[in-house]
Amino acid sequence: MSKVQLPFGMQDYLPDDCYNKVKTESAICNTFSSYGYKRVCTPTLEYADLFTSDGMMSEKRLFKLTDTDGSLLAMRTDVTMQICRMYVTSMSGVQRMYYASDSFEFLDDSNSARDREFAQTGVELIGDTGADGELEILTMAVDALKSSGLENFTVELGHVGYFDGFAEKLGLDTVSAAKLKKLINKKDMLGVELFFRDAGLSDESKESILSLPSLFGGKEILAKADELCSNDKSHAAIERIGYLIGKLEQMGLGKYFSIDLGMVSANDYYTGIVMKGLCDSVGVSILDGGRYDSLCSKWGKPAKAIGFAIGTRRLLSALKNVGKHEKAPKADIAYAVTDCDVKIVRTTVEKLRKKNTVVQIFGTEQDLVDYCKKKGISKAILFDGAPIELTISAKGGTI
Amino acid sequence: MSKVQLPFGMQDYLPDDCYNKVKTESAICNTFSSYGYKRVCTPTLEYADLFTSDGMMSEKRLFKLTDTDGSLLAMRTDVTMQICRMYVTSMSGVQRMYYASDSFEFLDDSNSARDREFAQTGVELIGDTGADGELEILTMAVDALKSSGLENFTVELGHVGYFDGFAEKLGLDTVSAAKLKKLINKKDMLGVELFFRDAGLSDESKESILSLPSLFGGKEILAKADELCSNDKSHAAIERIGYLIGKLEQMGLGKYFSIDLGMVSANDYYTGIVMKGLCDSVGVSILDGGRYDSLCSKWGKPAKAIGFAIGTRRLLSALKNVGKHEKAPKADIAYAVTDCDVKIVRTTVEKLRKKNTVVQIFGTEQDLVDYCKKKGISKAILFDGAPIELTISAKGGTI
Repeated sequence: MSKVQLPFGMQDYLPDDCYNKVKTESAICNTFSSYGYKRVCTPTLEYADLFTSDGMMSEKRLFKLTDTDGSLLAMRTDVTMQICRMYVTSMSGVQRMYYASDSFEFLDDSNSARDREFAQTGVELIGDTGADGELEILTMAVDALKSSGLENFTVELGHVGYFDGFAEKLGLDTVSAAKLKKLINKKDMLGVELFFRDAGLSDESKESILSLPSLFGGKEILAKADELCSNDKSHAAIERIGYLIGKLEQMGLGKYFSIDLGMVSANDYYTGIVMKGLCDSVGVSILDGGRYDSLCSKWGKPAKAIGFAIGTRRLLSALKNVGKHEKAPKADIAYAVTDCDVKIVRTTVEKLRKKNTVVQIFGTEQDLVDYCKKKGISKAILFDGAPIELTISAKGGTI
Repeated sequence: MSKVQLPFGMQDYLPDDCYNKVKTESAICNTFSSYGYKRVCTPTLEYADLFTSDGMMSEKRLFKLTDTDGSLLAMRTDVTMQICRMYVTSMSGVQRMYYASDSFEFLDDSNSARDREFAQTGVELIGDTGADGELEILTMAVDALKSSGLENFTVELGHVGYFDGFAEKLGLDTVSAAKLKKLINKKDMLGVELFFRDAGLSDESKESILSLPSLFGGKEILAKADELCSNDKSHAAIERIGYLIGKLEQMGLGKYFSIDLGMVSANDYYTGIVMKGLCDSVGVSILDGGRYDSLCSKWGKPAKAIGFAIGTRRLLSALKNVGKHEKAPKADIAYAVTDCDVKIVRTTVEKLRKKNTVVQIFGTEQDLVDYCKKKGISKAILFDGAPIELTISAKGGTI
């Protein structure tokens, strides 16, 4: 007999879970579409190179396969990079695109709580847009999460320019800056200490970098941030964040946003604002995104871009935690045929289905009544000579 | 610079193609749902063993990967087998399920016209059903194809029992029967000749097997088939097909069906009726399915089952060939902001979006008008102090 287990980090969606997944994804996709975004679909397999060139992503994170001609393939791990490739090869100007697909991350720790296949819905706004594009993306992030039924969430807003300014002030080269970024991202404070000792930086520098994580909250932290580092890069980042938060507040969306200038993203390709959606009931981000103005030029066609992705499973567990998990709906009408012209059965049932009624066949008359009682279906049709409508009462008798 | 090509047999769906794909899949999924079927979702990676044990499928057809613990994984190649695994581990009784997912076939010929990643929508009816279940599946196949917009198609109906009866009459053992089946499936008539010579079978046997492919058409061929081979297995198959076609004709669906008793399926797991959806404009089947009563027992829980899958790309090209390919819809209303309180913009636009109107922002007033003219969008809003509705005439002026 064959194995029936699944590889770790993979899962089935049984009917109830799948119903919630598809319902949530549809609501989000409809929101994207209402903003004029168009859906695209990318392949599951790419040349591994797409993800790993220029050290963009570690090869270790990929599910890899060798193709028939010896080239290295990888399973989709980042849709944004695929859509940039698509834009570069087939599009121009400003393009609004969205997707709903699964990505894959090769993890070797079978005890990890992380999924190795994860569904995401996301958007990409590629082409020449500035703060206006960011506002569009940020309001869409709020509208998308709200459309899923989630009410309490925060989108944290940061800007990689602020850290870059910091690194410049400290006189760090690109490699050292990237190293420090990684340490802060992992919240490895001992590592940060050692980094400062090895780099021979001043205590003052250390103090200022260690206060990065405290730069979160409302608009009031921007002045504090400016005090800490106010060279061109940092100042421009602070100005942009201030502008965006101001506009979002005017729109009445202020309550959904907070600022976190200590946020340094795990994704190396972000070049401007970065965002992270959080909610109390799950300990990980349910939305991640930012501006990535240099990604398209990797494939030879410079284009500004912003986008975000929502993690479907994480969002579903957030929704479940606030009681928003439904059962897959039962049939509206069940029917059974004891003795009837099949043409009459077909015509009757087909007409109902065309009106979006779910009509399901079910055994004999007794089976039909039992089934409806059990499932709480109040309408049934018994085809006995002609269609006979039965109303199944809550108590279970037919009327 | 990184490569921008795709591995062969993989493709992007750009906005217009993706729009048609999602529209078609949704129409089909709604049909499945209207029959009381519930959607499920299976993982992209499984232990390879699921597909290959008992020689069910050749390992060569799989995209394979080695997991961290050395076990062999494979990318989904057959959703039916996954759903059987799901049923065996998590379900019982009669279950109606459907799916829309991509499967993968490892092909090493880069000149092949076949896709290596192919989207399918399909259904599985698992549990104790007989001819009634087959009728449900067959009518649903017609309704699903019709819902996609396809009008001219035929579902060919066969039965593996007829060939099995034939093989029994010839006195072939399982291995020889399987070999002959493969030759007939490939239409390798020279191979069939050689098979007969090697097996030392009579000329009469050869004649009868060579007439198998001629057993297609309407109900009238059933008598001919019965004449050719009428042992228990073959006769039962003929009876069942006759019964089903009779019922389908009574329902008014006769025109969608024809019989092909020479159909021997490539899938080894079929045990009863087999079906194949064809249409003039594409040379390959757009729908494949059948009864597979012994698959679940492979994982330790016997259960009867029937199902089919529709190949999305094949169906899309059939639809395209009859002129049914649409452009992704443009925005209903475009808007631009020259000078306005953002709160007013947000409230106005949000209200429209909530009414399922697609509202897209667009640059300056002149850009807005140019954009609407170019795209044929007749409604626009200019936010200049207050929202000003513009009607863009066909000729291009604003009214």
